[in-house]
Amino acid sequence: MVANTYLEGSYSEIYPDIARDADGMRKLFRQFSFPGGIPSHAAPETPGSIHEGGELGYALVHAYGAAFDDPDLIVACVVGDGEAETGPLAASWHSNKFLNPAHDGAVLPILHLNGYKIANPTVLGRMRDEEIRDLFRGFGHEPLFVEGDDPRLMHQTMADALDVALASIRSIQQHARDGRKTIERPRWPMIVLRSPKGWTGPKEVDGKKVEGFWRAHQVPVSGCRDNPAHLKVLEDWMRSYEPDKLFDDNGALIPELQALAPDGQRRMGANPHANGGLLKKELKLPDFRSFAVEVPQPGSVIAEATRELGKFLRDVIRLNAKERNFRIMGPDETASNRLDAVFEATERVWMEPTEPYDVHLAQDGRVMEVLSEHLCQGWLEGYLLTGRHGFFSCYEAFIHIVDSMFNQHAKWLKVTRELPWRRPIASLNYLLTSHVWRQDHNGFSHQDPGFVDLVANKKADIVRIYFPPDANTLLWIADHCLRTYNRINVIVAGKQPAPQWLSMQDAATHCDAGIGIWSWAGTEDANAEPDVVMACAGDVPTLETLAAVDLLRKALPDLKIRVVNVVDLMTLQPREQHPHGLSDRDFDGLFTADKPVIFAYHGYPYLIHRLTYNRTNHAGMHVRGFIEEGTTTTPFDMVVLNKLDRYHLAIEAIERVPGLATKAAQVKQQFRDKLIEHSRYVREHGEDMPEVQGWVWPNSAGGNTPAEAGD
Amino acid sequence: MVANTYLEGSYSEIYPDIARDADGMRKLFRQFSFPGGIPSHAAPETPGSIHEGGELGYALVHAYGAAFDDPDLIVACVVGDGEAETGPLAASWHSNKFLNPAHDGAVLPILHLNGYKIANPTVLGRMRDEEIRDLFRGFGHEPLFVEGDDPRLMHQTMADALDVALASIRSIQQHARDGRKTIERPRWPMIVLRSPKGWTGPKEVDGKKVEGFWRAHQVPVSGCRDNPAHLKVLEDWMRSYEPDKLFDDNGALIPELQALAPDGQRRMGANPHANGGLLKKELKLPDFRSFAVEVPQPGSVIAEATRELGKFLRDVIRLNAKERNFRIMGPDETASNRLDAVFEATERVWMEPTEPYDVHLAQDGRVMEVLSEHLCQGWLEGYLLTGRHGFFSCYEAFIHIVDSMFNQHAKWLKVTRELPWRRPIASLNYLLTSHVWRQDHNGFSHQDPGFVDLVANKKADIVRIYFPPDANTLLWIADHCLRTYNRINVIVAGKQPAPQWLSMQDAATHCDAGIGIWSWAGTEDANAEPDVVMACAGDVPTLETLAAVDLLRKALPDLKIRVVNVVDLMTLQPREQHPHGLSDRDFDGLFTADKPVIFAYHGYPYLIHRLTYNRTNHAGMHVRGFIEEGTTTTPFDMVVLNKLDRYHLAIEAIERVPGLATKAAQVKQQFRDKLIEHSRYVREHGEDMPEVQGWVWPNSAGGNTPAEAGD
Repeated sequence: MVANTYLEGSYSEIYPDIARDADGMRKLFRQFSFPGGIPSHAAPETPGSIHEGGELGYALVHAYGAAFDDPDLIVACVVGDGEAETGPLAASWHSNKFLNPAHDGAVLPILHLNGYKIANPTVLGRMRDEEIRDLFRGFGHEPLFVEGDDPRLMHQTMADALDVALASIRSIQQHARDGRKTIERPRWPMIVLRSPKGWTGPKEVDGKKVEGFWRAHQVPVSGCRDNPAHLKVLEDWMRSYEPDKLFDDNGALIPELQALAPDGQRRMGANPHANGGLLKKELKLPDFRSFAVEVPQPGSVIAEATRELGKFLRDVIRLNAKERNFRIMGPDETASNRLDAVFEATERVWMEPTEPYDVHLAQDGRVMEVLSEHLCQGWLEGYLLTGRHGFFSCYEAFIHIVDSMFNQHAKWLKVTRELPWRRPIASLNYLLTSHVWRQDHNGFSHQDPGFVDLVANKKADIVRIYFPPDANTLLWIADHCLRTYNRINVIVAGKQPAPQWLSMQDAATHCDAGIGIWSWAGTEDANAEPDVVMACAGDVPTLETLAAVDLLRKALPDLKIRVVNVVDLMTLQPREQHPHGLSDRDFDGLFTADKPVIFAYHGYPYLIHRLTYNRTNHAGMHVRGFIEEGTTTTPFDMVVLNKLDRYHLAIEAIERVPGLATKAAQVKQQFRDKLIEHSRYVREHGEDMPEVQGWVWPNSAGGNTPAEAGD
Repeated sequence: MVANTYLEGSYSEIYPDIARDADGMRKLFRQFSFPGGIPSHAAPETPGSIHEGGELGYALVHAYGAAFDDPDLIVACVVGDGEAETGPLAASWHSNKFLNPAHDGAVLPILHLNGYKIANPTVLGRMRDEEIRDLFRGFGHEPLFVEGDDPRLMHQTMADALDVALASIRSIQQHARDGRKTIERPRWPMIVLRSPKGWTGPKEVDGKKVEGFWRAHQVPVSGCRDNPAHLKVLEDWMRSYEPDKLFDDNGALIPELQALAPDGQRRMGANPHANGGLLKKELKLPDFRSFAVEVPQPGSVIAEATRELGKFLRDVIRLNAKERNFRIMGPDETASNRLDAVFEATERVWMEPTEPYDVHLAQDGRVMEVLSEHLCQGWLEGYLLTGRHGFFSCYEAFIHIVDSMFNQHAKWLKVTRELPWRRPIASLNYLLTSHVWRQDHNGFSHQDPGFVDLVANKKADIVRIYFPPDANTLLWIADHCLRTYNRINVIVAGKQPAPQWLSMQDAATHCDAGIGIWSWAGTEDANAEPDVVMACAGDVPTLETLAAVDLLRKALPDLKIRVVNVVDLMTLQPREQHPHGLSDRDFDGLFTADKPVIFAYHGYPYLIHRLTYNRTNHAGMHVRGFIEEGTTTTPFDMVVLNKLDRYHLAIEAIERVPGLATKAAQVKQQFRDKLIEHSRYVREHGEDMPEVQGWVWPNSAGGNTPAEAGD
């Protein structure tokens, strides 16, 4: 990529220092895989690239993401035979079942069988042509074979194959675009290219085979500084290309060869599809306030947060239907995650045959479902990287499947932000739901809230983590995320019916601050510090915290409680580490300098410690969260097993407030008895005790008036 | 699985409470997907299972892991068409290129196309038979189709297909085992089973199609308590199986049907291969001390840690060659990770054609290389779960690809440890190398030390994380890990030439404690607390810490420095949280109660904070580690960019020791100047300054005698 874009001139336009002369070429060579220079594989710094080399597996799925909704684009995707061994790549071949020739572009896979990886032959490289043909016909392609080692013949054969492939693509597209109904899914062309690894490089070094073998990987001849024989091999190799005939006296490519490259944006290094921000159009968003759940009093209404979000997303789809630049991805879970309102506006894309009883399938659907988190993530990355927008909803536990893809995308964003010529692309937005705390029918395999721990390792300017506690806060956050660029936003929210806490106006104030005191829930005096801070992040921890506060308010009316709710987890970090981080003064204002803080958190408790270890009151922070307990059980039993329930939280508050444990010994014992009662009840009845199931926030009694106290 | 093992009797043997009578059956039904009961999919609690359902994708790769080196075993592996859409499963089909019919068992894949997932048709389910045939012939199989919906006909067709498949397997095996050389890789049989989803369940509910559609997923008819029509559907459905004819008056299966199940261990719930600990034989280990690197003085010898480990692993292979119960996995990286001594004892397994110039390939090799971390991990899991041993070496950054597989295996181990009938299996041992700190040619895409953060989220009795600082410690740790059961051991160690610190005897003392004071490196008095503690975990941080100590010793001879090296990261956790955790007293003894601790750590610094936030001196701990900086650059520049280098560490020590910053202002400035000099030098020369490259620990000068101070 680097050499090609240098020769076609686009490289020097972006990096004028690497000019098209001898000095520029020297710099070009020297910076390659050199400290302070550029990596040895495609990278953000490489013009015309949309993803980094190195970790393999994502070429084809990104190619499809790039082709969706771009009818004039043909994405030629070179898949190495090493990369072809990876799981994500193996699954990607089925992407052609989701590509609509009428309004999507085309992907032309070029499977490059050079036969070797770092130190091994490749699995596909050693398969016979018949097996390769069967395999890719089975994947829905018509393979065109280009095989040999004579460059002159090979170039012509390749050109012929490309002509055939492009004609075939054009024919498939015309057929679909003429409005003739496609009965059968088309058989798309692909090219299988067999050429030697290290082609035209040294045949042998020290009597050992190099060209056409894995020894040609990366450094075919080494130690040229000290080994004159190796230097000779290198020189002969370089001279074999007759550079004197290719470059003029100043080191510039001769005009006849320069003229071979296409012009302007048709050069591979200047293709705007590989700098998606150039093509990006603003996403049109409906007013999220119009989807507000009416919440006259905190806790007075029950709603399913993701179901409300579904209505908002439905209108996002409608508003951008003409632009065709927004898609929703989900591994067979859009309906299960209760976003099904989107099916009022669109369908699931499906190019395979349909049956009369099928529902919500269409060739031009905008929801993409396949039972592969890798494909969902990869399609979306490709779609975003080429200038579009999207949303990915996933079961919380299984998002770990794409940890490494998330990592690489975050790295990509980090580096592209430092390159002024790379224009911002839309953020990658995750909704993680069907989360750890609701496992009535699944169980331990579906319980892992640790993805955000990985996310929090990334650079502050790239990542955001949100825990909206109810529907209105979820709507505010989702709207906000869809407006951002060059970020990865992770929203964690439940799908089950749950009490709603904030009106849309309160939600807006709260989310805008990212964290705040819920004074309507607490019992503190305006002019004195509370005895204890009950903090929470996440919908279930918020519910349990409020229930604990309710217990404490009733049993110990003199106890001064402050309730702090965290929506934006990054507010907890020091301001120096994250732009959303609270200053120490603001943090201390919320969490006090020395009062006990009982923090109920959605995920692994360590994350809260790790974010707050430098704060004044860190020694006073007692975090409860998921500690890997519980399997198939009731909602309340899940929190009890992990000690995140109202009784454990209330007991801990009593124990942590100085002097209270003795005074309130009887109350504590009552709460302990409740835990025993619960345990017995749930084993007998298979459901939670009525007093837990039926608990509601006491709208009238005790607390301050319902209004956001801010931060 | 639960129903089948109950009917065959094995379930009641393991769980006598679930007897083969009406009462037992009632308990069986009631516990299913019920609080305190069992999950709705296969789980550790399920007899005959070797992995959990839920997260899909690993059935086939585990099946191959089970079949390797077990010549009499045929693993029938049912792959659902939902699971078939995942990346790991898609890659797994190529596993047949690594299975040797002469000494491995066989895998019989049964691709079950019931056509639907939760809410969608499946990709493979809607493919025509011709495409399916092409696809699986391309994968090297001969598909046998079993299709229909009449149970009577289908049972017979399935039995016939099984007969054909088993005969074909036997013929392939006999051919290979008769010593006739296999020229062509055999074409293994597989079965493609098309049957309706929810087969023999309700055809319709409320006028909507259920049998043969996705509505049959999990709960085909709901709300039977309140909806009499639905209750009737349920009752009719259940009665359609004529239970009165199948069970006697006590609720026991009638003897004629009981007699259909095979006997003893041939029942699926009593198969010892699905309780691998029953079959496990001790791994024979050479004396790791015999591979010791001679280290007369700390830092006096240079060695490559992983290369030394390779020799030890070579002999592990030799000692267990007859038992054939040890394999090494690696994604094309065994040689790159410098474990190539293993090729003196074995080769890479390779069943595809070979060329005369190929090296280290053999049909009976014991090293498994494929460019898929998913396959390496999955094969190894399957191999361990069926009672064998293994070792997985991987580039550190790319191990994130299998985060989710690691998670699920850790969950499996956690639950199996609580089941007395499940016998312990060998630990899953990772060597993570080619790590973040050495990226001369790769770069940012290859830099991520965060896998251990994920590991540390798991239950303490399952996971161990080791950072051996040199070759002898690596040998000790590797030997230790290979002796453990039911754990996941993660070893992080570099492959580059590096100074060696400990003799084997000192290494043994140090590793046995897991953490210790290196008094030979420090300058503290025996009877007084040091001014500063320089702590380190990881080979590169240890090197930089010692170099910083050397700088400080020379510049500030009066400064009392303690050096603490951490091999076993879990020693940092409180004893209550991890069995290896130090008591607070021991921890304070090492890190002091209030002196500044400059902690140089291999990974993301937060992990150290999270492990130590409860310790007395946490406020005094200043951790340096990877902060996502640096790309393709020199070894020393990498540490400088992340502020983990000797100069930054020495400067921080000066700044943190009370009163020293002013006194040592000049020294500090010298170190700062060195950083500027380095920066200039590396950009100009593309390599590190001679004084950095050539730095050696001063064997003679200053410090105490080289001996482990231990704890």
